[in-house]
Amino acid sequence: MDSLRRLEELFAHFPGIGPRQARRFVYYLLGKSPASIKELTELIADVRASSVECTRCHRFFVSKNKGISACSICTDQSRDQASLMIVARDSDFESVEKSGAYRGLYFILGGTVPILDKEPERRIRLMELSSRLGEAGSPVAEIILSLNTTPDGENTAEIVRERVQSLKPGMKLTVLGRGLSTGAELEYVDSDTIRNALENRH
Amino acid sequence: MDSLRRLEELFAHFPGIGPRQARRFVYYLLGKSPASIKELTELIADVRASSVECTRCHRFFVSKNKGISACSICTDQSRDQASLMIVARDSDFESVEKSGAYRGLYFILGGTVPILDKEPERRIRLMELSSRLGEAGSPVAEIILSLNTTPDGENTAEIVRERVQSLKPGMKLTVLGRGLSTGAELEYVDSDTIRNALENRH
Amino acid sequence: MDSLRRLEELFAHFPGIGPRQARRFVYYLLGKSPASIKELTELIADVRASSVECTRCHRFFVSKNKGISACSICTDQSRDQASLMIVARDSDFESVEKSGAYRGLYFILGGTVPILDKEPERRIRLMELSSRLGEAGSPVAEIILSLNTTPDGENTAEIVRERVQSLKPGMKLTVLGRGLSTGAELEYVDSDTIRNALENRH
Amino acid sequence: MDSLRRLEELFAHFPGIGPRQARRFVYYLLGKSPASIKELTELIADVRASSVECTRCHRFFVSKNKGISACSICTDQSRDQASLMIVARDSDFESVEKSGAYRGLYFILGGTVPILDKEPERRIRLMELSSRLGEAGSPVAEIILSLNTTPDGENTAEIVRERVQSLKPGMKLTVLGRGLSTGAELEYVDSDTIRNALENRH
Repeated sequence: MDSLRRLEELFAHFPGIGPRQARRFVYYLLGKSPASIKELTELIADVRASSVECTRCHRFFVSKNKGISACSICTDQSRDQASLMIVARDSDFESVEKSGAYRGLYFILGGTVPILDKEPERRIRLMELSSRLGEAGSPVAEIILSLNTTPDGENTAEIVRERVQSLKPGMKLTVLGRGLSTGAELEYVDSDTIRNALENRH
Repeated sequence: MDSLRRLEELFAHFPGIGPRQARRFVYYLLGKSPASIKELTELIADVRASSVECTRCHRFFVSKNKGISACSICTDQSRDQASLMIVARDSDFESVEKSGAYRGLYFILGGTVPILDKEPERRIRLMELSSRLGEAGSPVAEIILSLNTTPDGENTAEIVRERVQSLKPGMKLTVLGRGLSTGAELEYVDSDTIRNALENRH
Repeated sequence: MDSLRRLEELFAHFPGIGPRQARRFVYYLLGKSPASIKELTELIADVRASSVECTRCHRFFVSKNKGISACSICTDQSRDQASLMIVARDSDFESVEKSGAYRGLYFILGGTVPILDKEPERRIRLMELSSRLGEAGSPVAEIILSLNTTPDGENTAEIVRERVQSLKPGMKLTVLGRGLSTGAELEYVDSDTIRNALENRH
Repeated sequence: MDSLRRLEELFAHFPGIGPRQARRFVYYLLGKSPASIKELTELIADVRASSVECTRCHRFFVSKNKGISACSICTDQSRDQASLMIVARDSDFESVEKSGAYRGLYFILGGTVPILDKEPERRIRLMELSSRLGEAGSPVAEIILSLNTTPDGENTAEIVRERVQSLKPGMKLTVLGRGLSTGAELEYVDSDTIRNALENRH
């Protein structure tokens, strides 16, 4: 395969990108100045090289200082050390953090476990979660499972719930509330959501 | 205006129908047999003539027996007489009823009140609600406000809440739970819904 | 089936209407005043009763005068009597007429013929077309086939073409030009349309 | 600005990419292996470094041989040297070439000229077009303008048409046919396209 087709192929693996748009990316780059290309490739290499996986929450962050191993949130003492929210991916973390509604700590699973998958350890960071929960003198008092309400998300929640309960029996374990989203019109809401909204009325 | 244009105009007022589709309806009817037209017009007249507004919940239902004034749900003693769900429209009632999650009674407001509207009584059945709640010996122990989580819906909820509280101080008054709908992906959920889901975690 | 369900069923046969919207139509009508219902049903009956199928072009039009048998276009001597455009449906006629680009006469087939259908006479007005083309002293000098460029439309065009050629050998028979539509972006145009646009370049 | 935000910014300039997807690209890359990152950045640099702008048609192509200055189509003697199709962008060229309907040569303008733009030379390769058409002994007998049928495309076509006519008076100059695209339904076709389809009937 020539390098042009191979580059198209790599772009086609970017999230949300199909073969057609991948090809447009290549043409876009062919028309850029050498200086722009240099900036782009150096930034990609640089960002990746200076990215660090936080040893506590396992999200990726960029640090010039190679000695740093925990992210700005995990080391922020003003955040609530008693709350640990478990999310599937960095993008879920971003979404919750952007809401401004949560002031505790996070743990990133790194993915979800499809239903019937036999080896969840290969999909999500269960061992790392054990280590995190096993930290001596941990002040964590509540674990919040924040996973998609999709079949994969609910399967993953079940697996994590079992693991937490065997590691920390008695630990308070919550899930995000189910119900009407903002802007919902009752006429178009699915029966399952109506049932949840009714159970969680207050 | 000729009768053809006038009929188009009437169809264009049907819910969700624009001028183009209204015109297609007219052409569709022009091509139907006289027998089909007769069936349609008779059914429309018949259904409307035999439709009754339930004196308790105010939803429309069809009854051949003019003596009947309350609908099959309001007269069903196996339903939970202690729960009264307030919805805006018949279509919202249909949506909740289809979910199978609710076994109590309903009250149909007949609409919503736009923000800043000065005369809510002209928009929704506040007087009829007063009568319903004022029934002697009413077993209603909980009122569930099931309104859209849109600005109009929330404004309406506020107006109904005030009315209920002045009529029945101390009555248990709940709203549908807010949070993640079924199938929600955290990455795409709005901040307001994340905040609600977090507050309503359990 | 009760009359309410039957009315829903009839509305669900209206063009572009599904069961959900059909039900909304019924609820919409239940809430209308008796006077509105009377106007609607009388208009439907009236429009259908006074609709006439033009004996020449076979489109439906409304006329209070039962003696009239040809529509305002077929009897308009200022229109080009030498051009006859064949379309599938009244709605196609409306679309062409709205463009203001055509000043000749029309013939409405009344439908299209699906591929492999064995009895095109039952689907479209082939016999009526024979009568129309066989009018003594007909000034028609060009027949324009204006059918959808879909498989059914092209199949229908082929059937009509054969019929016209056997009835009127040597008659000028044209089809609408194929090519780029207004607003087309070359990057997203399908290969078949590019081929046609290239063949029809001018 | 830190390098992570800057990389997001660069991705947000990729065709069709907004800030949200740009951020997802960065997270995607943070999770890739160092070897994958190396392959990607080397390919980008490599493809750009070995990309050549064809001296005749001005499209970009990849060549390991720096001595080559004309692309495989411009040097393919089996293609029709008498036809020159002018397109706006490489992606338009790709679309036409994919159709398999054209066997002549191309010229890429490099963009379009917005209406009222005063300096078309800065937007499109008018000087290069002059050189191409001025080649001694050029066998070009027909120039095909293949531009979007959008306002910008039509403005650009007008500018190119004037230039060609002043450079090569009498040269055959065609545009792609206008009319119904494949799959068009007459009922939904705009009036302008119906007018064109009618004018270009055949």
